[in-house]
Amino acid sequence: MPVPVEFWFEYASTYSYLSAMRIEHVCSERGVKLIWKPFLLGPIFSSQGWRDSPFNIYTAKGEYMWADMAREAARLGLPFNKPRLFPQSGLTAARITCAHAKADWIGQFVRDIYTANFVTGSDISDPLTLATLLNPIVPDPASVLSDARSEAVKMALRDQTEQAAKLGIFGAPTFRVGGEIYWGNDRLDQALLAALANA
Amino acid sequence: MPVPVEFWFEYASTYSYLSAMRIEHVCSERGVKLIWKPFLLGPIFSSQGWRDSPFNIYTAKGEYMWADMAREAARLGLPFNKPRLFPQSGLTAARITCAHAKADWIGQFVRDIYTANFVTGSDISDPLTLATLLNPIVPDPASVLSDARSEAVKMALRDQTEQAAKLGIFGAPTFRVGGEIYWGNDRLDQALLAALANA
Repeated sequence: MPVPVEFWFEYASTYSYLSAMRIEHVCSERGVKLIWKPFLLGPIFSSQGWRDSPFNIYTAKGEYMWADMAREAARLGLPFNKPRLFPQSGLTAARITCAHAKADWIGQFVRDIYTANFVTGSDISDPLTLATLLNPIVPDPASVLSDARSEAVKMALRDQTEQAAKLGIFGAPTFRVGGEIYWGNDRLDQALLAALANA
Repeated sequence: MPVPVEFWFEYASTYSYLSAMRIEHVCSERGVKLIWKPFLLGPIFSSQGWRDSPFNIYTAKGEYMWADMAREAARLGLPFNKPRLFPQSGLTAARITCAHAKADWIGQFVRDIYTANFVTGSDISDPLTLATLLNPIVPDPASVLSDARSEAVKMALRDQTEQAAKLGIFGAPTFRVGGEIYWGNDRLDQALLAALANA
């Protein structure tokens, strides 16, 4: 059995989109177990002294990122539209994902949130957007949404974000395989190879 | 004819090493003209408020980079030893490279400097190291070294660094092909494909 791949991602992150749309498919294709690990970059960036996305703070890097994203999305056959607002707050979506990381609908939810952010340009912090996306895929969307406001769920996401920092995770997406971390959409293939090599 | 690939690199940069060791070979293999563009990251980082390598400032990112470099070097079949001093000053080496970017020995010199920095752990700012590397590959190493101290050569490297910033270059290695930039060793293949597509 290959070792599992942990997928550490943040809904605001552009390069996480490129991985999130493909990872469930490529993992299942190769028989690799996937573990969804949503977390927040905000507190991690904050501890590095950044109060905004580094792509907004460092403008040359930001301008490059948007050009590179368009090229990489095209190369991977994924639709992509630069959102009007960047970064969006994926806090509630991340709480939902953290609370239901093992649900059979979670992969679809993850892809729907990223599509809302980076394709259709919807407000992913709006409970109405979340309800609209949850409606067709979960039996009881109202309780999923209200659960997301519980202290237990808030705490679970906070804990997971602290765990990310402890593991040395500083950006998203990050893949964690057998204790090693691989940062960036460009490392998805290497992470999968490591999962298969550690079998 | 494919359009040329400009290779913008900095001798202190770890990921530039991974590209520099391969680029002359892969370009010649595919019939792509290579233009060597040494520049300095120092002034560019400085203008972003960094007085050291971001890998030293942001420790989690730095720790990851050294692990990733070891893995990537192994994957590419390149030797790699973490240098005791990072970043080294490649100022004189960059001046020499800038002044002789079209010389037939320049590819060898570039690879020798990177090998000194990231394999044998020599001091690449030491004129003795430079003389030792130049000796077997240029007819008159003493004049190459003294030229590197001339105002004209100093100015040429300063101009090239300013041009990098104007082109939106914020890190190294960067490949520039037909007006578009590609950042990072991970983008070497895409840059080559772009050069061939623009033929």
